[in-house]
Parts: sequence; C-alpha cells; structure tokens
Amino acid sequence: MGGDRAPDEIVAGAVRARDELGVDVVLVGRPEDLPDTGDLSVIPASEVIAMDADPGRSVRTMKDSSLVRAAEAVRDGKACAMVSAGNTGATMASALLRMKRLPGVGRPAIATPIPCPGADVPTVLLDAGANAECTPEWLVQFAQMGSVYARQRYGIAQPKVGLLSIGEEPSKGTPLVKETHALLADGSWSDVSGGVFIGNVEGRDIMSPDVDVVVTDGFTGNVVLKTLEGGMKALVKAILASFETDDATREAGNTLLPALLPLYGQLDPDNTGGAMLLGLNGPCIISHGSSSATAIVNAVKVAAEMVDGDLVGAIARTIRPA
Amino acid sequence: MGGDRAPDEIVAGAVRARDELGVDVVLVGRPEDLPDTGDLSVIPASEVIAMDADPGRSVRTMKDSSLVRAAEAVRDGKACAMVSAGNTGATMASALLRMKRLPGVGRPAIATPIPCPGADVPTVLLDAGANAECTPEWLVQFAQMGSVYARQRYGIAQPKVGLLSIGEEPSKGTPLVKETHALLADGSWSDVSGGVFIGNVEGRDIMSPDVDVVVTDGFTGNVVLKTLEGGMKALVKAILASFETDDATREAGNTLLPALLPLYGQLDPDNTGGAMLLGLNGPCIISHGSSSATAIVNAVKVAAEMVDGDLVGAIARTIRPA
Repeated sequence: MGGDRAPDEIVAGAVRARDELGVDVVLVGRPEDLPDTGDLSVIPASEVIAMDADPGRSVRTMKDSSLVRAAEAVRDGKACAMVSAGNTGATMASALLRMKRLPGVGRPAIATPIPCPGADVPTVLLDAGANAECTPEWLVQFAQMGSVYARQRYGIAQPKVGLLSIGEEPSKGTPLVKETHALLADGSWSDVSGGVFIGNVEGRDIMSPDVDVVVTDGFTGNVVLKTLEGGMKALVKAILASFETDDATREAGNTLLPALLPLYGQLDPDNTGGAMLLGLNGPCIISHGSSSATAIVNAVKVAAEMVDGDLVGAIARTIRPA
Repeated sequence: MGGDRAPDEIVAGAVRARDELGVDVVLVGRPEDLPDTGDLSVIPASEVIAMDADPGRSVRTMKDSSLVRAAEAVRDGKACAMVSAGNTGATMASALLRMKRLPGVGRPAIATPIPCPGADVPTVLLDAGANAECTPEWLVQFAQMGSVYARQRYGIAQPKVGLLSIGEEPSKGTPLVKETHALLADGSWSDVSGGVFIGNVEGRDIMSPDVDVVVTDGFTGNVVLKTLEGGMKALVKAILASFETDDATREAGNTLLPALLPLYGQLDPDNTGGAMLLGLNGPCIISHGSSSATAIVNAVKVAAEMVDGDLVGAIARTIRPA
C-alpha cells in the first residue's frame, strides 16, 4: 500500500518478482484495493499509514496497517523478509517494534548503496538516516554490520571501511568522529565482519572505489545521500538541456544516448535494490517512495539473496552481545 | 607562496588582476623565490607554511610566514583584503589571530558558493568547514552573515535562508538543528541582514535556486562540499568516458562540447572567486589549493568588490554586539 505509485506498481513488481525470480511473494494490504495479484496470497490489513504521517504515532495506533502487519509476518515466520516503498520512518518503526533488534545491537542503521560511476560495486553508506544522533559504540556496530552486508551483497571479502570526517587525520572532526576513530583503529571490532578500517574518508571519497563502507551518523548520512541525489539530478538535467541547444547537438545527443544508458542505469535508484535496515531480527528493505515495478523486483531479489545467505545470522555473530 | 601551483600561477594571477581589473595588488612572500612580478610591490616574508602543516602551531611559531604577514597587512591598513590559496586552516588561523573577529561575532564561518547548474546565482553554503562544532547562536549569526554576503555579492535583496536538516518539519534533525530552527523562525535576527528564513532544507535543495543561503555547522557543511565535489567529478568523468565508446560517440561528443562549455565553466572552482571567511575585521578569501592564475584573478575581483561595497561594515551592522 506504500509508495507514490502504490498499489499498482508495487503489485506488478511483486508478480514479476514471483515470475522472474521464482521468489514466493506475499502481499500485505487491503485486498479490495489491489489490482490483479496474479494469485499471490494477500495478508489482509485494513489500515494504510500515509507517506507523510507521523511514524511513531501511526505505528502505535494503526495496528492493522499494512506496515505493522508486514513486520508481524516476518516476526511470526510467515515471511522471511519485508519490503516497503512506504513511509520510511513508519517502515523503520514497524520493523523495530515488531521484528526487534538483534541481541547487543544498540540501534539499527539504514545501509544505502551509493553508485560509483564506472565502478563494479557501489559504496555502502550507513547510517543513511535512522539515527540523527549516535554514540561511538553504535558507529562501531555500523562498521561491523556494513562490512557483513558489503561482503554478503557485493562479495567483498574484506570490505574497506572508512569513517566520514573532514580530513584524513584522526584529530579531524567532531568528538563523535574522533572517539569512533580511536575505537575503529583498535581493530578488534572487525574479526567476524571481515571489515578493514582504512581511516577517515572525506565526502569526495564516497563515490569512489577507494572505500566500500562509509560509516557516519544518520544526520550526516542522510544529508550526504540527499545532496548527492540533488546534485546528480541537477547536473544530468543541465547536461540534457545542453543537448537541446540546436539541431546538431540534438542529433549528437541522440547518438550518445545508448552510450550513456549504462551510466544512467547505474544511477537509477530503481536498480539499486533499495536501502536495507540492518540490526533487526529479519531483513527489512526500504525502497524509495517513487518505486516502479522494476524497483520492487530488484528489492525482492536482494531480500531473497539476503535470506539465502543468512545476513541476519551473520550480523548476529558479528555483534556478539556482551 | 601558498597553493599547489605557487608561486608561478599565483603571481601570474596577481599581475593579471592588476592589469585586467585595475586593482592594486600587493604580494606577500619570499622576494627571491618569486617569478617576474611585473612591478607589483612585495611585502617580504621569510617563512612558508606548508599545505599539510598543523595550522595552529604553524601560525603561532612562524611569525614571519607569508600568511601571518598578509593578515597583518590587512590589520595595519596596508591592504584592504587578503587572498590565499595556501593551507586553509592556517589561512583561517592567521586571519583570525591578526585581523580579529568583529565585535559580537561568536565564530567566523567559511561561506562557499555552490553552483546551481542552469541558474543565475549559486547557493551560499556556510559554515563550509571553519567550526566542526557549533552552537545555535553561532548558526543564527551564520544566517545573518550569509544573508549580507548573498545580498552584496549576488545582488539578492532578500536572500532565502534555509537550515540544513533531514526533513522539512521543525522536529527533524539534531538538537542543534531544532534549537537553531526555533531561533531562526523567530525572525528578529533578519532585520538588518535582509534574510528571510524559509525553514529547513534538505541536501537535495542545495544545488537548486529554491534557496540562496544554506546554514549548517562546519562539519556537515564541509562533508556536503566535498561530497558534491567528488560526486560531480565522478559523474563528469563517467560521461566523458562514455563519449569514447566508438568513433560515432567521439564525433557526437565533439559536437556537444561547445554546448557543454558554459556548464563546465559554471562548475569550475577557478570561476567561483573562492570561499570567503566571514565575521572578521577584514575580508579574507580562501582560494582552493589547485588555484590557477584565473582563480586568483577572480578571487581578487571578489575581494575588491567586497571592499568597495563595505561587506565588513555591513556584517558589523548586522551582528550588533550586545
């Protein structure tokens, strides 16, 4: 029920995911509002949390909402993972309250893949917005969870982990960054996760293959994510506008479009498979609000892979509660 | 003496600024190390603070460095403004220690113009890196100083001021952002500066004409700046690589280059005139480390304009010490 193009695109994506990937998809929502579900089963939920609703209050009061019911389905073993293109805050709150944190996890974090133009794998940025304020200990867990995720999702045996700051020196940044740097430099955090701390990284390193996992608080991470989103969009728009200068540039633009398509595909958020909420007792994928059917297919694909590879179990082994 | 291409490009830029703009430029540095200065006068300074030197220590111990002597020249009325492509931290420290803060200013801030592709004027981002940690009161002063700067430099009578956060609602963000929001929403800060508070803005708004001045702490601002720098560079590189796909795309690329040049020029940091350190008793321009002669010409041009328009006096009237 969630997302700007729900339910049509979401249901279409779910049907395609079943048909193309062979994944058993269960829908959650108002059966009477759904288009043709192609025989997918539906867990009924009478309420819908609006895209702009207050997350905490909605989840507490709308117990028969599709988001809460979806999270309960994972909790109860009726589903292995949850995918939503709905209200991000409410998705997180539902997943947190129903699926619960893994033992020892301070806070769940949103891991978002940032495409690196021309490179094979994206950079994983976390926390991309779950926790505006963080402690150094949580950031260390983000490094652990992000490393496990980068290993499992992108096959990087020893992910390079960087701490986002405003200079390479350990003395640069806020007290949070400096304290986290000291904890990460110690190295004992990494043994199970396989991550390797490469020190502080700067904003300019995020879209580069020099770092695989970028760790930061959820305020900075969300600002970075949206800054890149806006910056890329503005630049692409201006470039396409320059193609419209005259007939010659229009024709040249048409010649170039096929060569630009792979790059366009790499930057299209529909193709990333969505962001992943890490640290909970079940995978939860946050797909962007404007998700198309293709975005849902990719999100379901990632969810299935994370279930098959036991991402949650691997994170639980990495965190090891005291 | 500062900058990756010093002294040749810096001196060449100074000579061009004098010839092209009619601005009286004084060089500061080791006379014996300078190329042909075209009869520009030189204030001798025997020491050079390296690009990677510790700013605080260097400025305290190297009293005959070009940076310290340049700031002293402004303090002593031998120059009206200071321009440096050298060590950013040391430039700030020299300017702060020798030129001093204006009465009532809590902390100086770096104001950096962020180009908005296709728009007439850039967005002014501050603080772009002077203060990793800030108080709400300092951020309010950044709003004031940024408004005065946007008005004077870009002719915007009532600059739209946004507070960088992770959602439009006043309840979003860190305690710093929430407290600053309350202070800015009050409106009494803006009367002399002319700024108008438009509420929280997000990362995606920075490169848009919807906001003229974006206020944030120096940690977030510096991360944003470098993220955009890295993201734009990665995208442009990937686009240019796609032009090399085959003969047809190469030819199309050649046809398009003239149409892309204005955009390229808009994004080239050599053309922005540099960042400005606001809140001191004299203008101080921080030009990027790789500044060419053209960057220096533009920096001198901005410095002269800010002197002619009495930017420092206008900021002093805006801040009005208690």
